[in-house]
Amino acid sequence: MAFQNFDARIVTVLATPEASHFRTEPVAVLQTDLAGIIGDRHHGFTRPAGAREPWYPRGTPIRSGRQLSIVAIEELEDIARRLDIPHLEPGWIGANILVSGIPAFTSLPCGARLVCHDGAVLVNEGENAPCRFAGAEIARHFPERPGLDRLFPKAAIHLRGIVASVELAGMIAPGQLTVKIPEQRLWTGGTLL
Amino acid sequence: MAFQNFDARIVTVLATPEASHFRTEPVAVLQTDLAGIIGDRHHGFTRPAGAREPWYPRGTPIRSGRQLSIVAIEELEDIARRLDIPHLEPGWIGANILVSGIPAFTSLPCGARLVCHDGAVLVNEGENAPCRFAGAEIARHFPERPGLDRLFPKAAIHLRGIVASVELAGMIAPGQLTVKIPEQRLWTGGTLL
Repeated sequence: MAFQNFDARIVTVLATPEASHFRTEPVAVLQTDLAGIIGDRHHGFTRPAGAREPWYPRGTPIRSGRQLSIVAIEELEDIARRLDIPHLEPGWIGANILVSGIPAFTSLPCGARLVCHDGAVLVNEGENAPCRFAGAEIARHFPERPGLDRLFPKAAIHLRGIVASVELAGMIAPGQLTVKIPEQRLWTGGTLL
Repeated sequence: MAFQNFDARIVTVLATPEASHFRTEPVAVLQTDLAGIIGDRHHGFTRPAGAREPWYPRGTPIRSGRQLSIVAIEELEDIARRLDIPHLEPGWIGANILVSGIPAFTSLPCGARLVCHDGAVLVNEGENAPCRFAGAEIARHFPERPGLDRLFPKAAIHLRGIVASVELAGMIAPGQLTVKIPEQRLWTGGTLL
């Protein structure tokens, strides 16, 4: 597979302080193995199917594909603007990595590699669909705005970042990030654009 | 993630009769768990990096992404035509599934799901790059054609099928196959086409 390189930056890395909630908080470094962030609630090659996979019975063991959640600072600012709130912390929506400098970050193609200069290499598993649980956590910070939780899924569509798996185990810390974009073609049932 | 459905067919399923060689042979059914085909040499969530990942030191444990190899009957016919050979068996190049009815199969987008009607659901991890080992196995069947092994990588480019991971464990057997195509956009450093 031929890749095209694109330089960007990791601004902050975050981990879940308590396993019972998806909320994350900034930490100095994330240590990964091939199943994800060591000690994290999303660690594992597999996970039970949930609301995002309504086509599988809830709880069925499936391939994870959601070891890490990655968001872009520029897109969080867009979401905040759309929601008319002054600020949106990446930790409120459970992000593990906050990046900067990648245009249309959420639309990066599946299979793109994120090479973290502290060691780990991640694979883009695709867009992270916005959900009301994340909306509720945002709304908790703006009690004067009833109904804010329900506005989040629509405001965050194509802006909520991506989910990723670990391809090469290692550390992830703020600093340089190289994005490797695979060859892209649109498949349209036979006609390639 | 919104998917578009496309109906196709599994023609043959194949497994490695001996763990020491990538060659596969038709079987009645493949039984998978979330790490791949049970008992297969490619079974596992991880594998050692090899010639396809020259950017990693050989032998480094990495995420597999290559649990199964899937090829299309139409594309094998194209490769055979380009190589000027009468026939190309999917087992010669180590395929596990032979499909039919999907135009431009090798160019299916990463993240496409293959729903096998006998139970398993697979995720497209991307194009399988042609290699000389597969070329050598083809050439073994045509001893009158010296140098055939070296023609394979070029003849098979964008026609050699895909590699896939198991998302939902289950059986894979000849019969109906539904391909679920994720939303596609071309990422061009900011401008989405």
